[in-house]
Amino acid sequence: MTALAPRSAHRLSTSGEPVRSWTVTTAKPVRYEVGFTPDVLDPANPALAGAGVPDDGPAPPRRLLVVETTVDGLYGDRLRAYGAARGLDFEIHVLTAHEQLKTMDAVFSVAEAMDRFGIARRSEPVVALGGGVLMDVVGLACSLYRRSTPYVRVPTTLIGLVDAGVGAKTGVNFGPHKNRLGTYHPAAQTLLDPRFLATLGPRHLRNGMAEILKIALIKDRELFALLEKEGGRLVDRRFQGGRGLGLLVQEVLGRAVHGMLEELHANLWESELERVVDYGHSFSPTLEMRALPELLHGEAVCLDMALTTVIAERRGLVLPVERRRILDVMRGLALPLWHRLCEPGVLGEALADTVRHRDGSQRLPLPFGIGDAVFVDDVTPDELVYAAEKLKGYDTETEEGGHA
Amino acid sequence: MTALAPRSAHRLSTSGEPVRSWTVTTAKPVRYEVGFTPDVLDPANPALAGAGVPDDGPAPPRRLLVVETTVDGLYGDRLRAYGAARGLDFEIHVLTAHEQLKTMDAVFSVAEAMDRFGIARRSEPVVALGGGVLMDVVGLACSLYRRSTPYVRVPTTLIGLVDAGVGAKTGVNFGPHKNRLGTYHPAAQTLLDPRFLATLGPRHLRNGMAEILKIALIKDRELFALLEKEGGRLVDRRFQGGRGLGLLVQEVLGRAVHGMLEELHANLWESELERVVDYGHSFSPTLEMRALPELLHGEAVCLDMALTTVIAERRGLVLPVERRRILDVMRGLALPLWHRLCEPGVLGEALADTVRHRDGSQRLPLPFGIGDAVFVDDVTPDELVYAAEKLKGYDTETEEGGHA
Repeated sequence: MTALAPRSAHRLSTSGEPVRSWTVTTAKPVRYEVGFTPDVLDPANPALAGAGVPDDGPAPPRRLLVVETTVDGLYGDRLRAYGAARGLDFEIHVLTAHEQLKTMDAVFSVAEAMDRFGIARRSEPVVALGGGVLMDVVGLACSLYRRSTPYVRVPTTLIGLVDAGVGAKTGVNFGPHKNRLGTYHPAAQTLLDPRFLATLGPRHLRNGMAEILKIALIKDRELFALLEKEGGRLVDRRFQGGRGLGLLVQEVLGRAVHGMLEELHANLWESELERVVDYGHSFSPTLEMRALPELLHGEAVCLDMALTTVIAERRGLVLPVERRRILDVMRGLALPLWHRLCEPGVLGEALADTVRHRDGSQRLPLPFGIGDAVFVDDVTPDELVYAAEKLKGYDTETEEGGHA
Repeated sequence: MTALAPRSAHRLSTSGEPVRSWTVTTAKPVRYEVGFTPDVLDPANPALAGAGVPDDGPAPPRRLLVVETTVDGLYGDRLRAYGAARGLDFEIHVLTAHEQLKTMDAVFSVAEAMDRFGIARRSEPVVALGGGVLMDVVGLACSLYRRSTPYVRVPTTLIGLVDAGVGAKTGVNFGPHKNRLGTYHPAAQTLLDPRFLATLGPRHLRNGMAEILKIALIKDRELFALLEKEGGRLVDRRFQGGRGLGLLVQEVLGRAVHGMLEELHANLWESELERVVDYGHSFSPTLEMRALPELLHGEAVCLDMALTTVIAERRGLVLPVERRRILDVMRGLALPLWHRLCEPGVLGEALADTVRHRDGSQRLPLPFGIGDAVFVDDVTPDELVYAAEKLKGYDTETEEGGHA
């Protein structure tokens, strides 16, 4: 039998007798939007009402929302008022989300809510309001339910705004492993509204700053300079505009999101395993899971970045003065440089797991100066011990890092 | 800020100030192979040893296999001998798989086996040996584990050979719903070996015949004629070659697989919800789940096909003589035409769930003569009652259907 004629990008070819075989060649088109939408809960703002609704049909009159418990307490009334004002029937499923509850049970809870709602397959996007954990959980539930249901993300934390709300990954923890089960299923639309940060606590603001710092270190020297100069003020003012801060907020958040998307868009399914955005994510998954619930994600990422900064300095990739500036920014944000789990056994296990995750090689991004990165495959246990020891010392120094 | 230059098929565009937004446009390339591989457990056959291994690296010396309990009992020794003969370290995870165990717990069991094995991300494909349920479960586990791990399917049942092993879907049942949670994640390679059918029981052979009949009815008149003439003999001889049956086996299985892939390859993610391969799958998911464990999948599909054949006849889409031939083939294969659950309440609920699944419309495929199909959106409760009543009568008739 002959090969079928190619139809657009899809191809099915078949070999002949006696042993017959077929090859399917196709591609899944993906398109998603991420955008700033100031004051998303203002009834005059149509963004939320129309988000994620397919272009070809009428906007459905009802919507299922999954809202994090704390967010519901703070914004539930405004959210319900928004629905009422826009004539939408909002069904709100409240879910408590944090790293220890980031499991398939939380996914099941969302899937059951979708079930009770009797959700349509394509025309009723689920709306997720919360931080990174909530969005990852809702994203996985939507990815699995009928093998793909559209959803919308409205991040309410800084880490959600610049990291979890921007990419394509969903996931939950499994056994001792962070995000071991998941999918690639980006929200059709992500609405970024920094107003939510007005109610975010300082530790969670700093947690998000760690991911902004990551983008700065691997690819945006100017963003680093902004964090160095203004990072503390941004946290103190909770990223709220007014008194001349508006442009700075836009600049820092915009650069962070743009940098992230620049790296992700051409490698959305991670076919390339050397990813600069994995910076800070080589040792941190194990550290974060081992320390649960002590360390927030960004704090674990910062430990990892501090470690690899010192390794980079020892290899001559980062100058002592650059290392000092980097660690000073971390200290300025009250992010940790060292933790008792930064010891040879745990770091060795973390590296082994990362090597399996990167299919047999370290593919470890290290900073190259400030604002660039290189990949190495040969970090040794000795280097890890050296870096951890150095950082243990730095961690107890003053903010100026005078002895370094 | 300006739009980034398009890089191959990926694009990131961004709007300017004051409200900044980004659109990610990309496509995920997918390629997979399905092929007949006679005697896949013969140590002289290299297919299984090399299946699913990336081209760019060396073949890994070990492999994790997930094998259905019954299959392990029948073929476990030969499988282990194959591994030993080819110098491969086989780690075999035995899993009992049937419709009632098609749950996320089974997926977790496979994920835990992957964890214990310490599987690499890309270079160690999981090998699934079993029927449709086992392959769907392993497929979902591999899809979720690290958001995508390659796997290989070796179907050991007829329904596995012509249906579950051919497409891209993975899934498990959730609550009362069949395959409600799942993904699209085709095996890198599927090895089809009809030799496994030599040990398959008659009821399971007939179960698979229902899916072959589906393909025949919606798109392959010649395949229907083959089933009409030779279906009984194929089941009796368990699709084994010899005594002149070899070419017939190849023809029937080849046509079934080819027909399925023709329909799937250009619509792998079901962006088009009008799918002729959904024929027999509008009412059957609810019937199958309600009747658990009484009906096999193909039996429920046959009930659905009988129902819609009678509806099609009443609408003048199928001639009485064609309806009679269709039902005679079903009877000849000892597949059911009617079941006590074919009553207005259950059928109405089944249709309502299918309408949600097809995003608000029935999009119901009906046979158009033999070998073609049309879609309708307006099947009424009266038509369902009419068809069920008719079939209740036909079901008790003789194989010749004399009264029809």
